[in-house]
Amino acid sequence: MNLFFDHSINKNTKTVNFSFEESKHIKSFRMKSKELVTVTNGKGLEWIGELETINKNNPIANKISSKVHNDMISKIEIAIAPTKKIDRIEWFLEKSTEIGIKKIHFIQTKNSIRKKINKERLEKIIISSMKQSKQFHKPIIYDIISFNDFIILNNNTQKFIAHCQNTHKTDLAKNLINNNPCTIMIGPEGDFTRKEVDFATLNGFNPVGLGKNRLRTETAALVAIQTVHTLLTI
Amino acid sequence: MNLFFDHSINKNTKTVNFSFEESKHIKSFRMKSKELVTVTNGKGLEWIGELETINKNNPIANKISSKVHNDMISKIEIAIAPTKKIDRIEWFLEKSTEIGIKKIHFIQTKNSIRKKINKERLEKIIISSMKQSKQFHKPIIYDIISFNDFIILNNNTQKFIAHCQNTHKTDLAKNLINNNPCTIMIGPEGDFTRKEVDFATLNGFNPVGLGKNRLRTETAALVAIQTVHTLLTI
Repeated sequence: MNLFFDHSINKNTKTVNFSFEESKHIKSFRMKSKELVTVTNGKGLEWIGELETINKNNPIANKISSKVHNDMISKIEIAIAPTKKIDRIEWFLEKSTEIGIKKIHFIQTKNSIRKKINKERLEKIIISSMKQSKQFHKPIIYDIISFNDFIILNNNTQKFIAHCQNTHKTDLAKNLINNNPCTIMIGPEGDFTRKEVDFATLNGFNPVGLGKNRLRTETAALVAIQTVHTLLTI
Repeated sequence: MNLFFDHSINKNTKTVNFSFEESKHIKSFRMKSKELVTVTNGKGLEWIGELETINKNNPIANKISSKVHNDMISKIEIAIAPTKKIDRIEWFLEKSTEIGIKKIHFIQTKNSIRKKINKERLEKIIISSMKQSKQFHKPIIYDIISFNDFIILNNNTQKFIAHCQNTHKTDLAKNLINNNPCTIMIGPEGDFTRKEVDFATLNGFNPVGLGKNRLRTETAALVAIQTVHTLLTI
């Protein structure tokens, strides 16, 4: 089945009028009238409808059934400093959505080079990846927030800051407990500063490493996510 | 330190004449004469030399010391069907090199769309990623081989075939034993055929899954690698 997206629908919606974007996809899949179509709102909804006679510019589907799936399995939150080249963050969003992530925070750190993100564009990448990997929950992304504000506001059960400095830290894999929600902070190209690591540690973040190799920002974030997923599987 | 590459050197090499490619990097790092420079051959060598007065087009370094590092830690071999869009494989090569991989095999499967790879270009991506992540061992890539030949020729201790079909399989994470070398096969966009999975299984490959979500080819390969790394860490 091909999955479509409409943020405005709920389980009681009778008719879906596809957006311009989604209409293009219906056309490219060469879908015909009477064909079944699955639509999600990214909040767990699996809405199945039948396509009406397809008006090329405005396809419509009428409801057959709907079902709401429980909370997404992944309870991972990543706080990441946007990379200098935004395509690396875009790649990270596509991949982390496929693998499974709950929330993505962008943080402004001392060594951050990029100060802005185009949230609308990033949102589109997430929606596309969610549809491609057939998930009914869309990860949530937030606007950039300062490092200090993030530290103070995040109150997850397990909190980690991954960094490359030669101070005391242990492997992320050795620190995770069960399926508790967790937040993992990933630094910019120039890493977090010592002061930032200290401030995070003072505020309940556990300093961790992600293996022996020096990883790029977006690779580190993905490694962190898959580390959590692996530990939940075994 | 910045790491440079020269496949032709060994621990007894007295002088390194940098290639055109590496000379450009020396220039872009604005390195000066008398500066120390680290060079590897991708086979474990860490060669340290001092730059002579820099002739812009042909920098030279004279040996100070050299050391050979043991075998790379990663004993993972991935056999992957090249993706339709080659940038997805290129991305996979960059990331898997960063995280740690020993060998990459390209396989021609029933549902493969791409039949050719540009090995020289892919090799460059691997070398760049190896240098960036400061490793002294270069993953080895091989030319495309047929699915059947690969199955018959690969004699690793642990062998897995990851697929999306609804036949009996268990999670990769639940099947890995210790730090034994392992081979993991990853299918093309249209997955392996049932016949291919059966043939692999008959020949000692264990059918496995990589979690609940439908992953793209290159994502699946990366997830497999990080799953192995995580299990070796805990």
